[in-house]
Amino acid sequence: MEVYVDGVGMVPFGKHPQTSLASLMAQAARTALEASKGPDVEALFVGAMNSEEFTGEGNLAAALADELELAGVPSTRVETASSTGAAVLEAAFYAVASGAYSSVLVVAGEKMTHLPTPRVTRILAEVIEPYERNAGASMVALAAMVTQAYAHKWGLSHRRLERVLCRVAVKNHRNGALNPYAQFRKEITDEQYYNSRIISYPLRLYDCAPITDGAAALVLTREKGDVKITGVGHGTDTLAVRHRIHLHSFAACRKAAERAYSMARRGPKDIDFAEIHDAFTCFEIIGAEDLGLLEEGKGWRAVEKGKTDLEGEIPINASGGLKARGHPVGASGLAQAVEIVWQLRGEVDPARQVKGARIGLLHSIGGMANNNLVVILEREDAPAHAIKWEPSHSRPVEIERHHRPDPSRVSREGVLDSYTILYVPPEGFPSPLVLGMITTYSGHRILARAATPTTFKVGERVAIEKGDGTFYFMRYGWAQRVVFRLSRKARGWKLALRRKLRV
Amino acid sequence: MEVYVDGVGMVPFGKHPQTSLASLMAQAARTALEASKGPDVEALFVGAMNSEEFTGEGNLAAALADELELAGVPSTRVETASSTGAAVLEAAFYAVASGAYSSVLVVAGEKMTHLPTPRVTRILAEVIEPYERNAGASMVALAAMVTQAYAHKWGLSHRRLERVLCRVAVKNHRNGALNPYAQFRKEITDEQYYNSRIISYPLRLYDCAPITDGAAALVLTREKGDVKITGVGHGTDTLAVRHRIHLHSFAACRKAAERAYSMARRGPKDIDFAEIHDAFTCFEIIGAEDLGLLEEGKGWRAVEKGKTDLEGEIPINASGGLKARGHPVGASGLAQAVEIVWQLRGEVDPARQVKGARIGLLHSIGGMANNNLVVILEREDAPAHAIKWEPSHSRPVEIERHHRPDPSRVSREGVLDSYTILYVPPEGFPSPLVLGMITTYSGHRILARAATPTTFKVGERVAIEKGDGTFYFMRYGWAQRVVFRLSRKARGWKLALRRKLRV
Repeated sequence: MEVYVDGVGMVPFGKHPQTSLASLMAQAARTALEASKGPDVEALFVGAMNSEEFTGEGNLAAALADELELAGVPSTRVETASSTGAAVLEAAFYAVASGAYSSVLVVAGEKMTHLPTPRVTRILAEVIEPYERNAGASMVALAAMVTQAYAHKWGLSHRRLERVLCRVAVKNHRNGALNPYAQFRKEITDEQYYNSRIISYPLRLYDCAPITDGAAALVLTREKGDVKITGVGHGTDTLAVRHRIHLHSFAACRKAAERAYSMARRGPKDIDFAEIHDAFTCFEIIGAEDLGLLEEGKGWRAVEKGKTDLEGEIPINASGGLKARGHPVGASGLAQAVEIVWQLRGEVDPARQVKGARIGLLHSIGGMANNNLVVILEREDAPAHAIKWEPSHSRPVEIERHHRPDPSRVSREGVLDSYTILYVPPEGFPSPLVLGMITTYSGHRILARAATPTTFKVGERVAIEKGDGTFYFMRYGWAQRVVFRLSRKARGWKLALRRKLRV
Repeated sequence: MEVYVDGVGMVPFGKHPQTSLASLMAQAARTALEASKGPDVEALFVGAMNSEEFTGEGNLAAALADELELAGVPSTRVETASSTGAAVLEAAFYAVASGAYSSVLVVAGEKMTHLPTPRVTRILAEVIEPYERNAGASMVALAAMVTQAYAHKWGLSHRRLERVLCRVAVKNHRNGALNPYAQFRKEITDEQYYNSRIISYPLRLYDCAPITDGAAALVLTREKGDVKITGVGHGTDTLAVRHRIHLHSFAACRKAAERAYSMARRGPKDIDFAEIHDAFTCFEIIGAEDLGLLEEGKGWRAVEKGKTDLEGEIPINASGGLKARGHPVGASGLAQAVEIVWQLRGEVDPARQVKGARIGLLHSIGGMANNNLVVILEREDAPAHAIKWEPSHSRPVEIERHHRPDPSRVSREGVLDSYTILYVPPEGFPSPLVLGMITTYSGHRILARAATPTTFKVGERVAIEKGDGTFYFMRYGWAQRVVFRLSRKARGWKLALRRKLRV
């Protein structure tokens, strides 16, 4: 059964201090309902990541039905961390596709700006695996390590990496400046980017999506319309980033993309434009590679060449992305869908209109890329022939994982897979806090803290020490060499002595 | 497309201090997976009401996939307050019915016992409409007012009401004593009931479901099996209880029942047994009436006659219900489904087995009855002929609501629709706190606080006064009569004077 999009709506993203989350969401919903031509909606699907802690609003599904004077209608809330907006669209899609409803309203929103930043960071950090969170890893720290791993994997120098990330930030701000719904409607210059402070090396303030209030809504219907949803994919990954074999790309996104493409019987070459979850600039490049829109390992080069610009071969984040439109966590996925519908219908400002937009794709990341979705939307008149998707990357999409290590068996040497210097650490941690991902010689992957806040090189050999529940790592210098040799010898002597005593 | 239940699982409800919510849920899930005969599950649907605040676990959908070593598989969390367990079943049902998946795992759980009771009460109170919450209304206070309204509507004396509620509590404890998964596996006597302290008049401790840790799981599949889901219904109501015309029954339940019966092409007479959301004893009676299982206004009489006992005409809560099995808020709805599957398969202890169980129904309440679900499960060999449902109540299921009052226009006299004496009020309120629902002579319904903590009679005339953002009410005695007459006269004089001065 085909599922079409009817009316859509969005509130301008930014600060909305005077309204409750429910009434902000109702505002977007009313716009969508007013724009709808189909029959009355029969059910509500509501997305919010953590309204309980952000605004103290529980029972949001019922609250929103009431706020819209739709009390009576079934209303269900869906949550998958920061991909909530896409997940609620997926759940509503199934409900309509199952034949249970002929028309449903999907609304997603979040209100965050009224809280102080450390509180927001703490709430967002609840989605991080507890061990990593307790070791001091915040979302930006983990994203920075992913960024470093990407640069190391594909041989980007720090200079080159910076230039690429800057390009993404500048492009998205340029697009956002044209979007009346964007939180930041101003362009930024390269200088502004380079002058912005480093949050978690190598990520700067301008690499991170802001804290935002916002809501988006759309009506799904079985009645034939001009835009339909043809593919929905969803994939998860290990909660802990350190349990993943590959740090430089997201297996869950690849899984989601595979499913969405196969449901839509489309391939990356069919996609005219995409909205990608650029919560951190590097995620846009990794996302485009995971989706097969850019060649694996060459995404950064494509960005440098302007392939993802508004006039490029495959425009990415014509809306300004999470970076410039803003990132009300639970709403972003649905806001991407609304943007795609606008683009497909030619309803955006001509300056921002993607030329020949007939098939769009949205990519949404939940948590630290462990609950991701991909949705493909098409105009009814999109070319009907299916192009089979040949994955551009040879590695099959499989979730591989490191075994959880038994701390006593972790060897004392390893290779630094990635690291970051976090300048805004969580409460109770010193600043700067240096965190590293290390593959030990015993074959374990651990998240460790640097014993002293110095810089490292990804790929270098490090020494590991255990202390108060955390691992510490340090450069493997001559001192370590001596200490290790001696300790190994000492162990040998001890064993020999024991053996002697027993005899 | 038909949707069948494959394996089911549950953890014994009670206290599980040593496990995280995710691993408690994984335990139930593994039992369900091991019992499943069908293909591997392709997706996960996860229900928890507020894991963020109860245990600090965010990103639960991804966490559970990881915990089950199923990372990769799509995982979605669903929430509708205390009916979450039923709502996640509904969402999974649509996903399978849509053809997107052929087999999915549904898991619901909650962990609450590690927190002090006032903290749990505060978290649960987030689902109450803000004005009512700020006026001091907790879940039990609102439930007590619903109970009083029920008794008043059907002419039950306080004595009679107490006896009926006692019957429900004693019956559910008797059933729970036979259920190895129940939190309370002990019978209670009438004396114990009457000796338990009053929490919110007329509700005693034994009228309220306990605070519980628990999890339940089941696998839904398209492959033909022995038990199928034939009807799913869902309905909402105004968030505020005072906005509802009728306080003695739940329109959202009626709406949900109507949908579920019509989808299943069944009527109340087809139902062999039911699991009803008895978060408060009176809800079991109201629920059975809303479902058409007991005649409207005569449910209490049927309870007195033992019609809902294990051996009765329509056994209700053979599991012990929320009252005795326990009420881990997000899990209860799915636990009801698991109990029904066990009963249909004849897998419970013979002492607890419902005779001739072929069609079962679950009824789950979200928040203060504003997001409710009804699900009908049948054995494959249940009699196939459909009985059309003739609603036993004449009132059509419509969500009617009072208009929100403009406080300045609320008249100073009204009728007390219901009231309660709350002995365990929220922080910052005096104990006892007397709250009343009043229909004013200006046609508004307000929630007010008694000026002095005295007893009232439901239906009596009361005087209303406004003070510091709340309404206060008091018995309408001769003093009020004099004051009101004088104030009305004074207003008349003022108006006359003004008119004179203008002329």
